[in-house]
Amino acid sequence: MFEWFRRRARNRKPAAVIGQRGATDESTRYDLADLAPDVVSYLGQVAYFELAVFETLSRAVSESPTLASKEGLSAVAGDALTKHHGIVAELRKLKVDPASAMEPFAHSIDRFEELTRGNDWLETLVSVYVTGGFLDDFFQRLVGGLPKALAARVQTLIEPDREAAIIVEQLQQAIETDPRVASRLALFGRRLLGDAILLARNAIAGSGDKAHDEARMEPVFTDLIAAHSRRMDALGFTA
Amino acid sequence: MFEWFRRRARNRKPAAVIGQRGATDESTRYDLADLAPDVVSYLGQVAYFELAVFETLSRAVSESPTLASKEGLSAVAGDALTKHHGIVAELRKLKVDPASAMEPFAHSIDRFEELTRGNDWLETLVSVYVTGGFLDDFFQRLVGGLPKALAARVQTLIEPDREAAIIVEQLQQAIETDPRVASRLALFGRRLLGDAILLARNAIAGSGDKAHDEARMEPVFTDLIAAHSRRMDALGFTA
Repeated sequence: MFEWFRRRARNRKPAAVIGQRGATDESTRYDLADLAPDVVSYLGQVAYFELAVFETLSRAVSESPTLASKEGLSAVAGDALTKHHGIVAELRKLKVDPASAMEPFAHSIDRFEELTRGNDWLETLVSVYVTGGFLDDFFQRLVGGLPKALAARVQTLIEPDREAAIIVEQLQQAIETDPRVASRLALFGRRLLGDAILLARNAIAGSGDKAHDEARMEPVFTDLIAAHSRRMDALGFTA
Repeated sequence: MFEWFRRRARNRKPAAVIGQRGATDESTRYDLADLAPDVVSYLGQVAYFELAVFETLSRAVSESPTLASKEGLSAVAGDALTKHHGIVAELRKLKVDPASAMEPFAHSIDRFEELTRGNDWLETLVSVYVTGGFLDDFFQRLVGGLPKALAARVQTLIEPDREAAIIVEQLQQAIETDPRVASRLALFGRRLLGDAILLARNAIAGSGDKAHDEARMEPVFTDLIAAHSRRMDALGFTA
């Protein structure tokens, strides 16, 4: 059922393809290079976002009901931390203090984390899977605004859903054990999309022409939402 | 003041040297190969211990008072996670399920974590610095009981105090800002040694002759305690 995750993990294809299964390279025309924030703002918010994802996953590691799930989730947490440290290394290369670069985005991302926080371990997993996947996917669409070599490194670094199969497996097991949790988790997963979209829209540097920006963003968000639906599908949920 | 940490981090020398600054290779005669548990028990408990250290550090990341300290500690947490995953990879190479190998040690290490848990962020840092350093140092003394190639890999992997300078810096800053915390933290640090020694003793497979085992362990523990004193010294504390 979640074969497409595993395939992605092996192939390490560019992210644009996630949004459209089987899409060709033409999907890259949907990228948002012209609306991307400046390099430091971009790296600062991605760094802080990945750190927040890491923190959420660390909590999930601690709350894991079994040693096997603890062990699996620690690998997912490690992947988020690798993303964070990779972006921090890029900031350091630019002689930018990572904390200063992250600071302007701490408040809105902390607020986002509060709004999307799960009430228990399973909801935490759904949240990090759905919002982490969506935002990594989104941030990848902005790499066109970075210098070319940096863009390529960041593109590889923040690949979405790299460890998603581990989370999907945990959730599927829980649903098999107690099918009643499925509807609660599906409802929770649907609620997350709105907040993820708002955080993404805030990350975009407007051109000043709002109508133009909306028109530019529309196909990208259509694409991101399609990828979201596939994440929900992998859990047997209707998005 | 904590120059020796930085030097170690650069040089990556074998752990035995930590115990005795400037000691020669003869310090390796103090290793406990003959009292080491079987390979799977050894790897299982080291894997679980590093996971517990990672969880404690993750909590410290979340509770960090500044973004700079959050960022620094996330690197320390990442190092503990790398140790954990490295040991898990060794278990998998041996076709052993990591969760099963860790299971027998989960209770005693969880109990240890409860006993040594700090009441606030600073105490958490002292705890992980003092007990993590001590136990990594101890576990390295047991690698002689592993097959030679595995021993070399584990020796490198679980190097103690690799990221300790980051923790020491945070604690020194806090003490400079408010010198009154020093005596509380020093007292807390001293209390940790007993629990660390007990956990280490439990990890040793006795030969059946208790007096012989004690005699074998004595020089090693003298060495471990000397390294503990130097960790305390780095904070300006008397061990």
